[in-house]
Amino acid sequence: MANKLVYITRKEHFNAAHKLYNPKWSEEENEAIFGKCANKNWHGHNFDLYVTVKGSPNDDTGFIMDLKKLRDIINDYVVDVLDHKNLNLDVPFMENKMASIENLAIGIWEQIEPHIDNCKLHRIKLWETHNNYVEYFGEEN
Amino acid sequence: MANKLVYITRKEHFNAAHKLYNPKWSEEENEAIFGKCANKNWHGHNFDLYVTVKGSPNDDTGFIMDLKKLRDIINDYVVDVLDHKNLNLDVPFMENKMASIENLAIGIWEQIEPHIDNCKLHRIKLWETHNNYVEYFGEEN
Amino acid sequence: MANKLVYITRKEHFNAAHKLYNPKWSEEENEAIFGKCANKNWHGHNFDLYVTVKGSPNDDTGFIMDLKKLRDIINDYVVDVLDHKNLNLDVPFMENKMASIENLAIGIWEQIEPHIDNCKLHRIKLWETHNNYVEYFGEEN
Amino acid sequence: MANKLVYITRKEHFNAAHKLYNPKWSEEENEAIFGKCANKNWHGHNFDLYVTVKGSPNDDTGFIMDLKKLRDIINDYVVDVLDHKNLNLDVPFMENKMASIENLAIGIWEQIEPHIDNCKLHRIKLWETHNNYVEYFGEEN
Amino acid sequence: MANKLVYITRKEHFNAAHKLYNPKWSEEENEAIFGKCANKNWHGHNFDLYVTVKGSPNDDTGFIMDLKKLRDIINDYVVDVLDHKNLNLDVPFMENKMASIENLAIGIWEQIEPHIDNCKLHRIKLWETHNNYVEYFGEEN
Amino acid sequence: MANKLVYITRKEHFNAAHKLYNPKWSEEENEAIFGKCANKNWHGHNFDLYVTVKGSPNDDTGFIMDLKKLRDIINDYVVDVLDHKNLNLDVPFMENKMASIENLAIGIWEQIEPHIDNCKLHRIKLWETHNNYVEYFGEEN
Repeated sequence: MANKLVYITRKEHFNAAHKLYNPKWSEEENEAIFGKCANKNWHGHNFDLYVTVKGSPNDDTGFIMDLKKLRDIINDYVVDVLDHKNLNLDVPFMENKMASIENLAIGIWEQIEPHIDNCKLHRIKLWETHNNYVEYFGEEN
Repeated sequence: MANKLVYITRKEHFNAAHKLYNPKWSEEENEAIFGKCANKNWHGHNFDLYVTVKGSPNDDTGFIMDLKKLRDIINDYVVDVLDHKNLNLDVPFMENKMASIENLAIGIWEQIEPHIDNCKLHRIKLWETHNNYVEYFGEEN
Repeated sequence: MANKLVYITRKEHFNAAHKLYNPKWSEEENEAIFGKCANKNWHGHNFDLYVTVKGSPNDDTGFIMDLKKLRDIINDYVVDVLDHKNLNLDVPFMENKMASIENLAIGIWEQIEPHIDNCKLHRIKLWETHNNYVEYFGEEN
Repeated sequence: MANKLVYITRKEHFNAAHKLYNPKWSEEENEAIFGKCANKNWHGHNFDLYVTVKGSPNDDTGFIMDLKKLRDIINDYVVDVLDHKNLNLDVPFMENKMASIENLAIGIWEQIEPHIDNCKLHRIKLWETHNNYVEYFGEEN
Repeated sequence: MANKLVYITRKEHFNAAHKLYNPKWSEEENEAIFGKCANKNWHGHNFDLYVTVKGSPNDDTGFIMDLKKLRDIINDYVVDVLDHKNLNLDVPFMENKMASIENLAIGIWEQIEPHIDNCKLHRIKLWETHNNYVEYFGEEN
Repeated sequence: MANKLVYITRKEHFNAAHKLYNPKWSEEENEAIFGKCANKNWHGHNFDLYVTVKGSPNDDTGFIMDLKKLRDIINDYVVDVLDHKNLNLDVPFMENKMASIENLAIGIWEQIEPHIDNCKLHRIKLWETHNNYVEYFGEEN
């Protein structure tokens, strides 16, 4: 199967608090733009994170990547950094950025990508609520 | 159908921040008991709330209760009070209580129960994560 | 295990059209009470139906009831009668009743209950949308 | 982040009735081709609609598009037109078309696309039942 | 809150192989009764397990039971014994019993119940597929 | 609509047993690499299979492909071959391959692809647990 291209996805999750608040603006401007997401006392979410890698199945294992290893990378570099944390205050890789899910997904890609060997990181998909999610494929605009 | 007993459930949801932290205890004691839920900078969840009432179908409408009215009660007295809020800081009916989902479910029952006419409030079911939920039926122990 | 009481549930589904409309009332009265559910041209749903029976496991099979038999009863007496049908026009057991899910759940109980031997029908649970469901346990009010 | 390409998706839902019936054919031909979907008295579904747009996060907001604005566009031009309606009889943009989900997804794209500024409409994904969905990316064949 | 009765549920899951096969019967009899579940080479499932306990919230913690402790009990006495195992061959508490989900749920109750202090075990709910689950409340018939 | 490209997806499911075990290696090597997935007595899963085809809607039917026909192809060539089976022992198209989901997805593609006329097979998506799935688009690496 060494010449077939297969995509495999692992799901993890974490819970976190955040707010959408731009310190350059007044409280009123923040509320006008971000609505109740700007609540100064924070709100939070259960985030579902899907990480997809692509590659060809190894003949001896049938794997494109050992999912236990992918799980460990996601947990060591992302879940342990984000779970039960405040995205605005506690997360080094989100410092000086708006705590939107768009920026969070890009940050997660940058945390995971250097640790993927032999196959390639394909996609970060991040659900914030039942009603919205973002995807990032490492693409430039 | 006026002599049949039927249960109907309406689902709503809200997002909120909280922490589990008992001010009577030191930071170390809080961490020992509540683990990462005690993070002083908060964490948060997407809460799914199911409210069940019971009664008999009205012959003219087929309803035990107009679900639009039940939805409005849940939104006016619960969702608007909790959504995008901090359960420890922003919610009058949680003041001076531990912000556990057990206590939150009891509080939600007490908010909704006085507004249910003609049929009876039967159950509050509240999911905190994909892996845990509480139920409260207004029972004493 | 013949003295233990266990509950087993089988899920089936069907799609149907209906409207909430009381012919005793004017079109305006119907709209005032039922809102957009009164649309004269119908609307519809994917219904998820959960049927629960209770009894004790048979020593030779481990079953309280053969689920294939329960599936066949649900399909013969309910799904085949309701699937891709109009609840107001096409369903004999809903004739002269308001097509509410409350009444539909009671009707489904009455269709299934006579065919359950050896164990007992415990509950009909019927989801109409992601946000609401009814339950009927054969109880009088 | 102005040079990164991110995709964001918003979910909405609506309930509707429809039938699959080609007026050029006899009732028998319609039943032979569409089976129970051709029931002259209609059937219906809960439709889940996912709308994806793509663009780069704004530095000041972290957003590629304000999701409240996307939600309003979907509701104004699609959900309000389809919810609790009959797809064959009540929906101007489906007139003279077969009421299949394929055609419905194309119609929804055409309703939404003119209202997306600054970022681009990427995908319409429409679930009809738990077992099938369509996707349309605005592509020609 | 010490006088309120609240129910809390924790979800875990495990994957296992099994078959339904009564050694007292011939292969033909087994196939006649259990159908494809009797395949001599086994089949398997992803099992979702929900364990519910009931009690009153402690004033200092807001908990009826520490969910981390409940999780550990479920994992130590059930998941570690069942996960990636063969229910007919590898599980001491299922020896000499038919490997039905009814019997499995009773067995899980008996594994967990002795380890619940201060509050009471209320329910074992076990999903075998998307379409069926069993519940056991420790009741006699 | 004959010039628009639409994708439609049908979901089916099956339950099966398997193990990850390379006969070239010792039992210890297999355990070191595959962990509890190497259990010699097997384990199993509920597999959810999504098959996507792409094409243009026919003017007379609104379909890119009759979903009943797609369902029959999936059932005849895949589900009937895999459901309640042992992937290592019972499945001709998996003979002499590691029973990984990567290889299973490729095998499923090869079973279905020759039977799709008029439109094109686009994707096989296969969930093994709630936490992982693979996708195969017929691509070479």
